[in-house]
Amino acid sequence: MISFSQRLSDRIQTTRSWLCVGLDIASEALGNTDLSLQAVKDHCLKVIAATSDLACAYKPNLAFFERWGSEGFRWLEEVLTQVGSDVITIGDGKRGDIGNTARQYAKALFDYFNFDAITVNPYMGKEAIIPFLEKPDKGVFVLARTSNPSAADLQNHLRQDVPVYLSVVEMCQELNELKNVGIVAGATAPEELRQIRKAAPELPLLIPGVGAQGGDMAASLKIGNDGGPALINVSRAIAFSGDLSEKAIRRAALEYRDEMRRIMDA
Amino acid sequence: MISFSQRLSDRIQTTRSWLCVGLDIASEALGNTDLSLQAVKDHCLKVIAATSDLACAYKPNLAFFERWGSEGFRWLEEVLTQVGSDVITIGDGKRGDIGNTARQYAKALFDYFNFDAITVNPYMGKEAIIPFLEKPDKGVFVLARTSNPSAADLQNHLRQDVPVYLSVVEMCQELNELKNVGIVAGATAPEELRQIRKAAPELPLLIPGVGAQGGDMAASLKIGNDGGPALINVSRAIAFSGDLSEKAIRRAALEYRDEMRRIMDA
Repeated sequence: MISFSQRLSDRIQTTRSWLCVGLDIASEALGNTDLSLQAVKDHCLKVIAATSDLACAYKPNLAFFERWGSEGFRWLEEVLTQVGSDVITIGDGKRGDIGNTARQYAKALFDYFNFDAITVNPYMGKEAIIPFLEKPDKGVFVLARTSNPSAADLQNHLRQDVPVYLSVVEMCQELNELKNVGIVAGATAPEELRQIRKAAPELPLLIPGVGAQGGDMAASLKIGNDGGPALINVSRAIAFSGDLSEKAIRRAALEYRDEMRRIMDA
Repeated sequence: MISFSQRLSDRIQTTRSWLCVGLDIASEALGNTDLSLQAVKDHCLKVIAATSDLACAYKPNLAFFERWGSEGFRWLEEVLTQVGSDVITIGDGKRGDIGNTARQYAKALFDYFNFDAITVNPYMGKEAIIPFLEKPDKGVFVLARTSNPSAADLQNHLRQDVPVYLSVVEMCQELNELKNVGIVAGATAPEELRQIRKAAPELPLLIPGVGAQGGDMAASLKIGNDGGPALINVSRAIAFSGDLSEKAIRRAALEYRDEMRRIMDA
């Protein structure tokens, strides 16, 4: 069976795209007064239609589905049938719990929703990650250094000069027996990204923080792909681009994809 | 408006119970071959019927609902109508994400599901907690020192001799302006629990790790309630007690509740 890491590399090579389109569709961002689930669903479908040949991966953010309760989860089920079978789907839920509970999350995300990969929170240690690693073709991106302003509150605590985020990376290296472990490393902290890539030369990276969060795309893409494969996630700057039309969304996605090609070809 | 902290203290006083019944209902634990959602729902209802006058709080663990997809979330909606309106409900999802996403989780857990309190993962820092704190009557239990074997992997990293879990406690103290912040501190690490209680004398504590995980109930209950209120969570040791009958479940819950009363009266 092909490993997740290999599958991601193959997909990048086939599409010549490093673009992960984040599906974080909030009704508030639609800028009109129709705050119904239907309006959100319609917009999400528009984003998928506008980007399906440009995206290497889609990353539905589970919060934006949970917000609508059981109907929101039904919508997530629909979205996963809408994106097509070649694209890589990453369930962004950042779950993390003791083994007994993590096994249930694994059933939810891999067996029920059939995501190709997920994001996981390492705060509870190794035990919170291991239950997700049973299938080589299913990827697990573990949060190491996130992209948000308060990321360093805890992630930069040291143990014998090793910050938490690098301990996470060591843990990931150690857990990568089936070549299905990846790392989340934000574009807003390029120096940390460099350290992470050095400590885990072959692990897939999922890099958020480009777009609305202002991270440096060129540096992140170059550093990230110096070794294993790296995806750049863009959510709001694509899904809520310009006048929110399919054309505006496509233009934004195309610019990101082409810019990524230029950077990688240079 | 009454704060969450006050509401929890009042509820403990009224019920003379410190027992939080965890609803982690996995079909595998039912010990028969009927792995249908209906069997799980029936068992969950049995647990609620058997414990409704003994529980200070119920803590549905979201993983066990997500595992069934949208139907599982519909089940969670049902459970929240089944538990009665006086009991405190704690949505145990351990969510944690950047502000924009955390706001969606707050809508899901507080507005849609109407939980009285939730658990939150602090790995992404302050920003991952703040969006949950807008309403004084809604409680937020932040993971500090969890009860699982690999908890110390990251939680004990130091910054200037302060371990991560105590930095989390400091953060919680600072964020507690509306008296709605609490802390998750495992019964399996009583020394850390003591430090946490000392660092946050008044914050509500949610203490997992008693029962299947083997934590020390008497010590945890005493240390935890030396100051602000503390709940002891028991999940599997109640929900899957004896022959799984309502009688066996009730007996287990009653023993825990009475033992807690004895400890607190001593």
